[in-house]
Amino acid sequence: MQQFHTVYGGAVVEVVRDLQRARQAVLTARAAGKRVGFVPTMGALHEGHLSLIRRARRECSFVVVSIFVNPTQFGPNEDLDRYPRPFQRDVQLCAREGVDLVFAPSPEAMYPAGYSTYVDVEGITERYEGACRPGHFRGVATVVTKLFHIIPADVAYFGQKDAQQLAVIRRMVADLNFPLEIVACDTVRDPDGLAVSSRNVYLDPQQRRSALGLSRALFEARRRFQAGERSREALGTLMRRIMEQSGIAVDYADVVDPESFEPVDPATEQALLIVAGRVGQTRLIDNLPLWTPPPEPTH
Amino acid sequence: MQQFHTVYGGAVVEVVRDLQRARQAVLTARAAGKRVGFVPTMGALHEGHLSLIRRARRECSFVVVSIFVNPTQFGPNEDLDRYPRPFQRDVQLCAREGVDLVFAPSPEAMYPAGYSTYVDVEGITERYEGACRPGHFRGVATVVTKLFHIIPADVAYFGQKDAQQLAVIRRMVADLNFPLEIVACDTVRDPDGLAVSSRNVYLDPQQRRSALGLSRALFEARRRFQAGERSREALGTLMRRIMEQSGIAVDYADVVDPESFEPVDPATEQALLIVAGRVGQTRLIDNLPLWTPPPEPTH
Repeated sequence: MQQFHTVYGGAVVEVVRDLQRARQAVLTARAAGKRVGFVPTMGALHEGHLSLIRRARRECSFVVVSIFVNPTQFGPNEDLDRYPRPFQRDVQLCAREGVDLVFAPSPEAMYPAGYSTYVDVEGITERYEGACRPGHFRGVATVVTKLFHIIPADVAYFGQKDAQQLAVIRRMVADLNFPLEIVACDTVRDPDGLAVSSRNVYLDPQQRRSALGLSRALFEARRRFQAGERSREALGTLMRRIMEQSGIAVDYADVVDPESFEPVDPATEQALLIVAGRVGQTRLIDNLPLWTPPPEPTH
Repeated sequence: MQQFHTVYGGAVVEVVRDLQRARQAVLTARAAGKRVGFVPTMGALHEGHLSLIRRARRECSFVVVSIFVNPTQFGPNEDLDRYPRPFQRDVQLCAREGVDLVFAPSPEAMYPAGYSTYVDVEGITERYEGACRPGHFRGVATVVTKLFHIIPADVAYFGQKDAQQLAVIRRMVADLNFPLEIVACDTVRDPDGLAVSSRNVYLDPQQRRSALGLSRALFEARRRFQAGERSREALGTLMRRIMEQSGIAVDYADVVDPESFEPVDPATEQALLIVAGRVGQTRLIDNLPLWTPPPEPTH
């Protein structure tokens, strides 16, 4: 059930698969007065995850990372089977970052036979990613509810990269009175602008160049916004054109409210630019806030 | 926000309307090493509720009763507006029973503008009460999730009278990994056999005589079972006939598995007899396990 890994120059991280043991370890830490930070992941850890873990490590005295490729958030024709699972590498990265506990349950332990309960967030989940991936946010809300019960943390960390997921979780946490704080961390980008994602490993070199159309569309639309453009239509068309020119099959490109994911027209500094599309078999998403210009990559 | 009631010969119970204060009071009790028992109610307390509260009082060192008429579990044509709300009397009863905390939030605090998250338990909620009252169990599962987050108890007490609700909550607690124990308490009956219910106050004397058809049907069917009858069809028909003869408009009368609420045929000692029907405008439900014969009332 329980394993101890000694990796990365003597750094040790405890890996727990059992739900009750994981919960007990967190309760023990809390009873000792520790502030518990939780980073839920599907593994295949990249710099984006590491930025969440590092922030948790700075802000909390006990850091838990969960690694669970959640089947209920994948559609029947999506990439559940081929989703990358470099488990030993993930555990080593957690050890290196000083994580206290890795929680890595089995799908059977999370969804035993007869499983039948789901959490639905209405409204926001029907648009954009929700429309493209029916059932996806139901799976996310359900597994996050379960994880929050198993790992009773003080604060949980999510990436701004999955902006709509973040909005769904914030809504759910407020609505269901979950007793924890949600912290969002900025999207991490490769030097060429591509938002880091576990799915980037699917891209061959040509597809990867193609994928740069997402971030290029976002940054170009933000420049246009900063130059005075406020039309949702104009900004959306611009982003769509850039993505199509890069060879991306566009799912959507829009200007939305970052909490409700309703379209914003005219665009304001409180709005979020969002894009999604497919490069070959790989579906990629990205977003860029209009409210704070982070350092811009070179295209 | 916070009130103190001194009632019933000096007995004091704290009444809290604010969600954060209620949660904080429970956390304080837990930090002091107390075992917290929670009895969620819609008020209009009767002997059934009191039996839950007394059991909580025996088993726990801190007892919380919530009083909240949950709008999301009522259908559009149901009795939300006329549901009895004898709040002062309820608080007095809680004080008399030695309850430590009454949590009585407002509907606006529980479901603020923009509220959009719901918990669905599939399968079991589609049958019987779920079929008769669309959305009812969604409302129940949602409010119980919220209450379990606001009142982080060690154990929560529910009545066997609402057997399908109990099964839905047990399923939800297992599926979503809620960290608390669910205890079921036997149905309390008036001396004539009628299961006590907050809705019994709607009945005029003639309707009340009519309503006895529910418990009479259950106890007669159990006698027939004990005499060897195992046919679901025969037991259902018997219960339906007795209810109809009493002037009850039957919604259902069946033999089911107490966990899944799937029909059981032939009937076994692990099965549950369930009935529901309407007497005038009042909808009543009742049930009787085949597995343990409690003391039988006189008809």
